[in-house]
Amino acid sequence: MSFPVASAHRSGEETLIARYFKPLATDPSAFDLADDAAILRAVGEDAVAATDVVVTTDAVVEGVHFLAHDPPDTIARKALRVNLSDLAAKGAAPAGFVLTLALRDAGEVWLEPFALALGEDAKAFGCPPAGKMVRRSGAKPGDRLVVTGTIGDAALGLDILKGGPLATALVDDATGKEMLIARYRVPQPRNALATAVCDHASAAMDVSDGLAGDLAKLCAASGVSAAIDLSSIPVSTTGRKLLASGAVSIEAIISGGDDYEILCAISDDCYERFAHEAMQAGIAVATIGTVIAGTASPRFIDVQGRELSLQRRSYSHF
Amino acid sequence: MSFPVASAHRSGEETLIARYFKPLATDPSAFDLADDAAILRAVGEDAVAATDVVVTTDAVVEGVHFLAHDPPDTIARKALRVNLSDLAAKGAAPAGFVLTLALRDAGEVWLEPFALALGEDAKAFGCPPAGKMVRRSGAKPGDRLVVTGTIGDAALGLDILKGGPLATALVDDATGKEMLIARYRVPQPRNALATAVCDHASAAMDVSDGLAGDLAKLCAASGVSAAIDLSSIPVSTTGRKLLASGAVSIEAIISGGDDYEILCAISDDCYERFAHEAMQAGIAVATIGTVIAGTASPRFIDVQGRELSLQRRSYSHF
Repeated sequence: MSFPVASAHRSGEETLIARYFKPLATDPSAFDLADDAAILRAVGEDAVAATDVVVTTDAVVEGVHFLAHDPPDTIARKALRVNLSDLAAKGAAPAGFVLTLALRDAGEVWLEPFALALGEDAKAFGCPPAGKMVRRSGAKPGDRLVVTGTIGDAALGLDILKGGPLATALVDDATGKEMLIARYRVPQPRNALATAVCDHASAAMDVSDGLAGDLAKLCAASGVSAAIDLSSIPVSTTGRKLLASGAVSIEAIISGGDDYEILCAISDDCYERFAHEAMQAGIAVATIGTVIAGTASPRFIDVQGRELSLQRRSYSHF
Repeated sequence: MSFPVASAHRSGEETLIARYFKPLATDPSAFDLADDAAILRAVGEDAVAATDVVVTTDAVVEGVHFLAHDPPDTIARKALRVNLSDLAAKGAAPAGFVLTLALRDAGEVWLEPFALALGEDAKAFGCPPAGKMVRRSGAKPGDRLVVTGTIGDAALGLDILKGGPLATALVDDATGKEMLIARYRVPQPRNALATAVCDHASAAMDVSDGLAGDLAKLCAASGVSAAIDLSSIPVSTTGRKLLASGAVSIEAIISGGDDYEILCAISDDCYERFAHEAMQAGIAVATIGTVIAGTASPRFIDVQGRELSLQRRSYSHF
């Protein structure tokens, strides 16, 4: 018998965890990183809560945990079961799972049996795909549409990193270039606004795949449409410079990915308190349009009242 | 500007989710799969719990979310922040995170800044690595060491799949071969034993990287050693046949990976009830040895009383 990688006593995985990641576990509740599962406790929850939430995340990787030509249905079952096994060893009952798939390429012939087997095993082990949040789906006609920060910078930064035409357009603006690249590489999540979103927004999501596409998703989930005033979309100084010179189109700004700003719908009644709390949190928010009735795709209107015709609405990872 | 992949209106990712994975979300609490985060509720918890646990899992993939030559520190920050952004949009405060790393290869030059930046951001956003379970660390001298099911089958199955010598040894035993392959491809997690483990075990883990190596981890976490009776380790009929013919060594059986059985330490006082509950759950359990004081590596003793000298103790993923 042979094993792909063999080592004596302490494996490379353990050494790696001990050297690099154990030092991060400074939280009093993080006893060590010597276990396969973690306890998550909801913020504000009592220290002696009757029920802990146990979380486990075992990746199943081709060439390591399965072979390239293993049947897709057994890969699905193994992915779920190795994690169920961790829960069982911790004496925890499964409450649900989330799935992350990274595929080199995969068509129907692979995905269909994969998904079918995953569903069968999820049912067999009483472990449903976790109930999805509905907070995206409460937008009502008349609500304001609000975004945080500025839109489009990260996509411009990616263009520069890939040696696209913007590098030339910004040849004399090192600061602007660096800002755009930093926006791509190091997003600024708006966690300081979480409570205000929770308390006041009727629907919310983060803008990660482009404002236009993500707005369409939010509207679809709520069964509404939207009218957006293009001139109200917050764009950084560097972004405005590139728009003014024609180096970049507004379509590129609103369809580029990686913004990680919050898009939310807020009723007029709630808006004043929301804006106040955002100001206190030091996060800029801008009203960019209005939720309207109907199921049409959201419309983007320029200062002349013309509707923008969008070739693409979002950045796709597949 | 150019984008790696662009599509109109509905992205490939959305289509894939809608076609293959939305049909799995049949649980009443799984409203749909149209959102970026999920609510997990602890089993048995009140439906009107004051605090929901929101779970999000956004993978950050080279060539999709970052470029191959991006600095490791910004990749770490982005990996954490895109998930924090999802939480912020849901109005949820971060309680902790778990990390799954799949590396083609990575040395100190890459890992050190990656881990450092991850730790800095975790602190900055109040999002500690999740507190690790301590249930591995309560084994006491005198406790029995118990495993479920049979050990070694999956590693034998992997050898067959890779065209190793066992395929020849089992040329006339199609049923045995199929059983071993199935054990590698489709583990049988012991979730029916979770309550018994929770109620009676002083330490427990699942055996995923080989019994010998995983036992060493359990002992190290508890600050104890162990003496194992090799003849008590449960081996399948096919495994015993291969051992008897000399096609396989006991070292291969106890150092092979992918068993996904439970290994636990149980005091004599608790054992009878544990064994009874395991029987009711229809899961075979076997006592394979005893926890002893000290910090020496666990010892494996054969029927002649000789100690096995192990060249390797575990299967390593790195």
